[in-house]
Formats: sequence, structure tokens, C-alpha cells
Amino acid sequence: MTVSGALTDWGACAADLLDDLASLSVPGSGVTRLPFTPEHRAAVDFLSARMKRAGLAVWLDDAGTLVGRLEGPAGRGTLLMGSHQDSVRHGGAFDGIMGVVLPLVALEKLRAEGREPPCSVEVLGFADEEGVRFPTALVGSRALAGTVDPGVLDMEDAEGMTLRTAMAGFGLSPERIGTLKRDPGDVIGFVETHIEQGPVLERAGEALGVVSAICGIERHSIGIVGETGHAGTLPMEGRKDALVAASAIVTEVNRLALETEGLHGTVGAMTIGPNVVNAVPRVARLTAEFRSPDDTVRAAAGEALHEFAEALCERMDLGLSCGLTYQQPAQPCAAGLSDRLVKAVKAAGGQGLVLPSGATHDASAMADLCPVAMLFVRCRGGVSHRPEEYAAPEDMGQAVAVLAELLMSLD
Amino acid sequence: MTVSGALTDWGACAADLLDDLASLSVPGSGVTRLPFTPEHRAAVDFLSARMKRAGLAVWLDDAGTLVGRLEGPAGRGTLLMGSHQDSVRHGGAFDGIMGVVLPLVALEKLRAEGREPPCSVEVLGFADEEGVRFPTALVGSRALAGTVDPGVLDMEDAEGMTLRTAMAGFGLSPERIGTLKRDPGDVIGFVETHIEQGPVLERAGEALGVVSAICGIERHSIGIVGETGHAGTLPMEGRKDALVAASAIVTEVNRLALETEGLHGTVGAMTIGPNVVNAVPRVARLTAEFRSPDDTVRAAAGEALHEFAEALCERMDLGLSCGLTYQQPAQPCAAGLSDRLVKAVKAAGGQGLVLPSGATHDASAMADLCPVAMLFVRCRGGVSHRPEEYAAPEDMGQAVAVLAELLMSLD
Repeated sequence: MTVSGALTDWGACAADLLDDLASLSVPGSGVTRLPFTPEHRAAVDFLSARMKRAGLAVWLDDAGTLVGRLEGPAGRGTLLMGSHQDSVRHGGAFDGIMGVVLPLVALEKLRAEGREPPCSVEVLGFADEEGVRFPTALVGSRALAGTVDPGVLDMEDAEGMTLRTAMAGFGLSPERIGTLKRDPGDVIGFVETHIEQGPVLERAGEALGVVSAICGIERHSIGIVGETGHAGTLPMEGRKDALVAASAIVTEVNRLALETEGLHGTVGAMTIGPNVVNAVPRVARLTAEFRSPDDTVRAAAGEALHEFAEALCERMDLGLSCGLTYQQPAQPCAAGLSDRLVKAVKAAGGQGLVLPSGATHDASAMADLCPVAMLFVRCRGGVSHRPEEYAAPEDMGQAVAVLAELLMSLD
Repeated sequence: MTVSGALTDWGACAADLLDDLASLSVPGSGVTRLPFTPEHRAAVDFLSARMKRAGLAVWLDDAGTLVGRLEGPAGRGTLLMGSHQDSVRHGGAFDGIMGVVLPLVALEKLRAEGREPPCSVEVLGFADEEGVRFPTALVGSRALAGTVDPGVLDMEDAEGMTLRTAMAGFGLSPERIGTLKRDPGDVIGFVETHIEQGPVLERAGEALGVVSAICGIERHSIGIVGETGHAGTLPMEGRKDALVAASAIVTEVNRLALETEGLHGTVGAMTIGPNVVNAVPRVARLTAEFRSPDDTVRAAAGEALHEFAEALCERMDLGLSCGLTYQQPAQPCAAGLSDRLVKAVKAAGGQGLVLPSGATHDASAMADLCPVAMLFVRCRGGVSHRPEEYAAPEDMGQAVAVLAELLMSLD
């Protein structure tokens, strides 16, 4: 059966698929589909059937990654395209799973148009990117890159079940996870499509954007210890108010990020003690996070914050503890693949807007194996990880066209 | 038996009494002596015996106030002196009870020296000033002033016992509480002695200070509602970060108080949500408290804060709710009694330092009945409401001498 491209609305087709997949969820608001659960199984079964209908060879690898492979001309390598099937709890219908559906629909489109990609193509649906069930994530993509730590198999979910047991119960052989590494010589690259999870495209009036780099991240845990006292009797002069110091740090993190190109800075968590109306706060604990596509910029912000906090707490005679709790380098996207994406976006009528990704993605892990590129799809209000998450069918249709043209451009 | 004043260390005597009284506590760290409990009864019995030995007529009024009266010449009126017997949980051995002990020891001193006050004197030990057991306080002093609301008798403690039942179980007739109002024509004034609960006297190197006024208080509850978002994907420009706004408010409250003579300003409590490392804070709830001996200054600070918060939240496009949750006017101390205290402090070798009281005291309620004055005693490190609370015997000895001379000065 051949369907004319002009007669098929591929964006609506993707929207229908995502609607069906959204129902494969734990009951409740939004989508809850965690890895190695009955909902994951239902999504694998649904997508497998659809992939087979599209002419792909389908299997589940031992990390739980659903693979649909379209065999191309021998010796022309393989382009990997995909994202993750899992959601957060009460998440949306697009984050992750849309990046599995859109390349599949792109292959359906090419097939309908009677066109064949010049290389092999695999559509990948990773089991777990969000890290909601187990205190680890990116197992599927790390397995393909050969960077998975077998120790993570012993990690437990909230019910005390290990990842190993959960995978075995899903019919996998987790002990074979170390054998999944792909041959970098065969892989052309990995292209991930994802909702933006931010408002940049919406504000620019663009359906699609191409990611320049996945931002590096550093997180600081800051503890301030001063002295409490009666709010009415402790003189203002010489107070050691931990909240006053913490507030200055919040202001400084925000100022640094506002004044530094491409830098995100956020104090997301803060608690104080004793936390009562008529006592001067003695302690404050807060987190500070910086993200930037440029590691130098990010590290300079972290150092500036440490210096600011040290000078402040010395001046106010406060105790200060500052610890770096997490650090992840920036991951630039591959110029070659990204340029092709930009061209395809322009061909589809877009500006070819290039923007960094503030969030981490499967592409971060895949970058250890091969060149990576990412296509962002506008999402309404910049909202993700919530039931209201939404990408328009027209935007997804444009993304399908871009992915199809990208594939054809690899000739 | 007459003891020579020169041979008796009245400060050590007071310290010994307070040491004995500190043992009349719920077991555990520090002193826990709540109203209408066995510990309260033990303190009443202990003080009654001591009062009787000092030649006072002793009774417990129907609000639970222990009264020790020394009858003076008819028609010369009565000076009331005292404070509260109760502590906070795990409090210290001085807050409140020291203000019952020192005037008693002052009467012992005068008696030992063969001197008689020119008026009647009553030493008062109020049952409850701290308001720890029941959600009300100052019942004893309000009863004397005739301002007690009988409705408070229905308030319950954590075990569900009403104040009425607790008082009846203590042998009192709470229904008679409305009859306790004293005759303002007979009462010369109320003089309360209390630890400073702050570091002003310690910093000035002074044992004693005289209170100019009990500060007025106002408390604001502030709620800020912005928008959360992914810390990595939400652009810095246009963020509606509730914590950034709350931090600006903390900074402003502190600045206002530092730059305004006599004003205390404190943000004591703050919570934010969602309160996770990688999400922009959506909500912040905080309290702001201002205290000043001058109500005009205090009200101006409250208004300035409201204006600041409104302009800030309008600029940042945040929701703001601001409520005044508590307001208590300042209570100036009586010039006549206070001047006598200052003279007596100078006669005892002090500077006669005058300072406001940031905390509320029984004197606040007694001011509705009669002129009030307060004598502050230096406390180590400004610490109160903790087991480490401490006033030196020498400082208490000086206070005893001042109270004795004040009494004699009423001639």
C-alpha cells in the first residue's frame, strides 16, 4: 500500500500515536510509565507492532531498549534515532516518547512516498531516562555507548526490588548488558528529537530548533551557620542571621546568571532553622545550580559564587560550608549532523534557530559512542513533566518532515 | 534575728534561691515549669514559706498569682513588684522567676537592715506569662488590671484540658477571675525585674539597665506565587522565581531595621516550594516582624515593606498576599518610677543606662492598671529561654540594692 505524502497529515498521525501511547499509563492524572512495568510492556508491544507494520526488524535488547531497524545499503552505516519511552510520575504525553514516535513516522512517511534512506536506520526507545524508579538513569543509552556501570544493577526501587530483578522479570538478561556496546565504525550518529521543555521556541514563534550543546551542570550545597536569638531583644548590629546571608546568595546567583550570556543559575531548595516568626534564623541550607553550554563560563560562575559566599560569611562572622555535589561537563552537538538539521528546518520553512539544551538527554550518554544532534519541538508554555505538556500536531508534522529530509541528506 | 547588711551577700542569696527553684522542674535539660502543674505548686509552696519567713502575708489569688504582702503605713498606697513563675520548655533558671525572687530578697535586705518601706509592698509571682501550655498568656497580670477576657478560660492545652479545669484542679475559683481587678487609687505602680534577654548590657559592661518602653510589635505574613520550571530550560529573562523575590524582601527588612534607629526587623520563618535543586521556586511564604518603642516608626516600616513588596512583585509579575497577623502597641514606661530606678542604679555604681525592651512582659498588661517600670539585669551572651541562661550573683546583688533603694525612695 502506498499512500501519497500530500494526502497524509503526518503530524496528526504522530499525535494519534502519542494519544494511544498516553493511555498506556498507570491510572491517574497525566502519564506515569516507569521502566520494566506492565505499562512499559504495553508501550513496547504497541510500538513493536507499529514498527513491524512500517517494515522494520524489531527486538528488545538486554537493557530494555526497543529497537526497530530498517536495513539500508551495506557499508553505508547506521543512523540511530530515538529517545526514551518512560515518563515521570504524572508527567505528560510527549517528553521522551515523542522522540521515538517521530522518527518512526518519518520512516512511514518515506515509505509512503516510496523513498528509501541511503543508510540503515534504527529507531530506539530507551527504557529509562528519567531515573524516577531507580536512582540511576540512561541505562539503555549508556549500554549502547559501552559506559554502563554494572554496579547500577544492584540499585533498588522504593519497594526494594533491584534493577537486576526488575529487568530479569521483564524477560531481559541484565548480565549481558556489557555486550550491547555498538561498533562506532558502523554508527553514523544519534539524532534525538525532544520537546524543548522551555519557552524559547514559543517566544521566537518557531516550531523547531536545533540544539548547539547539552549544557554542563554543577550543583553546590551551601550551609550557613549563624546564631539565633530573640527577634525583639537581639540588636540589629552584629546579628548573625543565616537567612540574611542566604538571601544575599540567592540574589547573587540570580545576578550572575542574568548578567552572563548563556548561564542558568538557580537556588531551587532552601530550608532555615529554627524557622519561627520571632527568632533570628540560625541556620540556612540551600542548593545552587549553574548550567551552561560552556564549561569555562559555568566553572567561573561556581568560583565566583564560592568567593562571594566566603567574603559574605567572613564579613558577617558566619560559619560556611560549600560542597560541589554534582558536576557534568557540557556536551557539544556534532557540527555535521546539526548543520544538516538546520538546513532541513529551513527547508521546512523554519528559521533554523539554534539553542542550547538546559536539560540532560539520552544524547548526553550517546555522545560517548558517536556524533549526536538534537531537534527540539516547541511545547506550549514551555511546560514539561506535567499533564498539561503539549506539542502541536503541525509542529510534530514539521519535525517528521525534517527528520525524513535529514535521512535522505545522508546520501 | 537581725542580720547586718554588710555581712550578707544578697546576690548569692538570690542565686541560692533561684538554684533551689530551678530544681522544681519537669526532669530534663533546663527548667520546665508550666502553669497549674505540680512544678508550679512546688514553686508556690517554696516561695510562700520564704515570703512568710520574711514577714509577708501570703495568698494565692484566683488567677494563680502568688502574692506576698508587706503592710506599710495606711493610706500610702502599694507598690507591686514581681514577674512570672513559669518558664518555657527546657528554659533557664532566671527568665521570670528572678523577678519574683529579687524583690523578695530586697525586702529581706531591708528587714535585715532594720529599714521599713514607706508604703505597702506586694511581691507577685504570676502563674503564666510565657503562654507555653495554653494559647493565651498574661492571665495573672491581666486579672489584676481588669482586662482578662473570661473566654480564655475555655482555651485548651495540648491534652485537651481547659484553662478553667486546670485552674480549678489547682484549687482556684476561675469564675472569680473578674473580681481580682485592683483599685488604681491604691496602687503606686508595678516594677518588674527581668533578665535583659539580649546583649546590650553585656556589650556596655553594665549590670543593670532601666527600660524606656516595651516595644510595639507587628507581624506580617507574606505569600509570593510565581511559576516553577526546569532550572536548565527556563530562560533567566522573565523568570517568576518566588525565592528571588522573597530574598529581596529579607534583604529589605534587614536594611530598614539597620538604617532606622530603634527598629528591629526580622524574617524568622520562610518556606519555599517545590523546594528541589533543579526547579525554579514557585511559592515562598515568609513572616516579617517589626518592633520599636515608637509606634510611628514601626508602622512606617510596615508600610514601607508593603510598598516594597508590591512594587517588586508587580515588576516581577508575581502574585503577592500580605497580611498583618499581629499588632501590639508600644508601652512607654512611667517616667516617675523609671527616673527613680535610674537614680538608684547610679547610686549602686552603674551608669543608669536606659534601653527599650524588645520582648513583651507582665508589665505590658499591668500598664493598663498603673504606672509601670522595668529593671533589666545583664544576662550572659544575651541568652534566654535556654538552659544556658545565666545572670551573675553580683549583678543580682546590685539589682536587690536598687530595688531596696527604690522602695525607700517612695517616702
